[in-house]
Amino acid sequence: MVATGMAVAGGARARALRPLFGCGHRARSAVAATQAGPRGLVYEQHGEPAQVLHLKDIDLAKLGDSGVRVKMIAAPINPSDINMIQGTYAILAGLPAVGGNEGVGQVMDTGNCVTALKPGDWVIPADAGLGTWRTEAVFDEKTLLKIPSDIPLTCAATLGVNPCTAYRMLSDFEILDPGESVIQNAANSGVGQAVVQIAAAKGIKTINIVRDRPNLQDLTDRLKSLGADYVITEEMLRKPEMKELFKEIPKPSLALNGVGGKSATELMRHLRHSGTMVTYGGMSKQPVTVPVSALIFKDIKLCGFWMTQWKRANSQNKEKLETMIADLCSLIRKGQLVAPMCQEVPLLDFQAALKVSLEPYVSVKQILRM
Amino acid sequence: MVATGMAVAGGARARALRPLFGCGHRARSAVAATQAGPRGLVYEQHGEPAQVLHLKDIDLAKLGDSGVRVKMIAAPINPSDINMIQGTYAILAGLPAVGGNEGVGQVMDTGNCVTALKPGDWVIPADAGLGTWRTEAVFDEKTLLKIPSDIPLTCAATLGVNPCTAYRMLSDFEILDPGESVIQNAANSGVGQAVVQIAAAKGIKTINIVRDRPNLQDLTDRLKSLGADYVITEEMLRKPEMKELFKEIPKPSLALNGVGGKSATELMRHLRHSGTMVTYGGMSKQPVTVPVSALIFKDIKLCGFWMTQWKRANSQNKEKLETMIADLCSLIRKGQLVAPMCQEVPLLDFQAALKVSLEPYVSVKQILRM
Repeated sequence: MVATGMAVAGGARARALRPLFGCGHRARSAVAATQAGPRGLVYEQHGEPAQVLHLKDIDLAKLGDSGVRVKMIAAPINPSDINMIQGTYAILAGLPAVGGNEGVGQVMDTGNCVTALKPGDWVIPADAGLGTWRTEAVFDEKTLLKIPSDIPLTCAATLGVNPCTAYRMLSDFEILDPGESVIQNAANSGVGQAVVQIAAAKGIKTINIVRDRPNLQDLTDRLKSLGADYVITEEMLRKPEMKELFKEIPKPSLALNGVGGKSATELMRHLRHSGTMVTYGGMSKQPVTVPVSALIFKDIKLCGFWMTQWKRANSQNKEKLETMIADLCSLIRKGQLVAPMCQEVPLLDFQAALKVSLEPYVSVKQILRM
Repeated sequence: MVATGMAVAGGARARALRPLFGCGHRARSAVAATQAGPRGLVYEQHGEPAQVLHLKDIDLAKLGDSGVRVKMIAAPINPSDINMIQGTYAILAGLPAVGGNEGVGQVMDTGNCVTALKPGDWVIPADAGLGTWRTEAVFDEKTLLKIPSDIPLTCAATLGVNPCTAYRMLSDFEILDPGESVIQNAANSGVGQAVVQIAAAKGIKTINIVRDRPNLQDLTDRLKSLGADYVITEEMLRKPEMKELFKEIPKPSLALNGVGGKSATELMRHLRHSGTMVTYGGMSKQPVTVPVSALIFKDIKLCGFWMTQWKRANSQNKEKLETMIADLCSLIRKGQLVAPMCQEVPLLDFQAALKVSLEPYVSVKQILRM
């Protein structure tokens, strides 16, 4: 299944490299408006996305002084989008709502007081909850962040959450000099792949934990091609052979946990004294269990990271956010950061894309194309 | 049992207030040496303390230039002392070893280069592992810390670990202004009682969790007499009535966990957003279990505290340690910090004291008198 996914992804990535609007998206002149009226994937109540999401005509807000009319180009389906529609996420949109929290759009028109954006610019949401699964919208200038339009579309559409999460977790918790190491589970996730690449660009070694699977060698090869130093199964992680690995590289001071449960406990076990485990996901739906001795005697610290919270905490001062986006785009241009495997699906086919997204062990991100 | 304990403790505390050596311990002149040769509770192998500990004659090291001859006065039996003898603690002494890590002694003689200590001074260990269950020893000056000799003996004998742990946990993890709150389990432990008193002196409200027991009202009254604002059972903590409490005081930004297991998870549940839980003990012998959502969405941080580690990290710069000791002694003099319930036992009767220490639910600390 992943092998198929890889073929699909390869195709998607290749397509994404072709400019979508010729040079039009870089021009200062106004871009032609879309022909059909604005439509979006709307839910009026919480529930299973396949049941409650409907593609509907939607009204555009008035442009006003600070409004920005945006034609959405592409928006991924992330697990948090699904949870938000189900009503189980930590933040929920007021109903009725348009689904989707991430994506890239192109500025079509701007209000009189908007100075930081102009028609043709590419923009991504500066915060969660905008509702990106729609063809067109008027957003307030403050809710948008300009990004360069010379990066692949799939990178742009998936830039604001996973690579940013990886970037912050590698920057904000431990000082990591080149040659030092990081251990992470869920290494094949969107965040995991970004961690591998950003760490490699910084000269930081990565120990990447994945679940055992029939095509393990394919996955290992792919992660190594992204820059992974070690790819290890959960089972291997418990074996004494791990000691050999730590003859080659120093023990990690940072563990990144997207799984929880036993996997998280195992990550912690390999942390060096006074190290930190940052939890950003809980794919196993199991809590994190910490031996008391790890806290007291090994001085291990545990904390969490949530990009949405970080963006809100830094909303008044966008400099940090802009620096991060610039750094990430620089890596993308240098070929050091590629998007995860993606499959582009026309908005009309959203039901098929949702179905794939809800399958377990999905390795191919579904990207709605507007 | 606790009622009896309280009577005993009251007696012990009253006795402790009587000067032990008349004014001798404050005089600059040399104090008379003990009559019998030095003896100590020695273990030559790890195991159950009742089996492996023996009261033996021991040799005194030579005084040398930096040595300090100390007549031990009193030393408590702490759970970590037991674990160290059992061989299960995070640090172990080289064998054969003298048991005990805490206690107070009086300086009898000093080496030529010792300037900070003089005969008559009271001293406590600056680090774990000194072996305090003995009548007399020569320690290096660096391993000792001078304390005032005008505080009750039980306070002095139990000053270096529990009150210091409470002091640091209330100082080093969250900024707590008067009126703010702290939640803790094991509120009846040595650390717990110190937390209650130090917090009360700072105007910080304490929510104290204890296990349900037949004489709960006695315990509640006693903790309240120490300054506890709320005393709540583990069972109560899970009930919706807790909401009422938080109409009176703000939610805690700091939780102090000496238990682990479910108790720790419950503490965490009441922390405010971005709060910290510090684990210093694991009486339940259960690990700490953290819901992933508490880490990611509630931004809860978990860490540990170990006084031994703190002392080692600060061993080159004793200023912080001295300030802390001075602050604690000031609270003691003002009557704002009293020792936990203690029972003094002659060194010869150490087997009886060990037996009491190993009983579950012990609330009366055994203090060996040399």
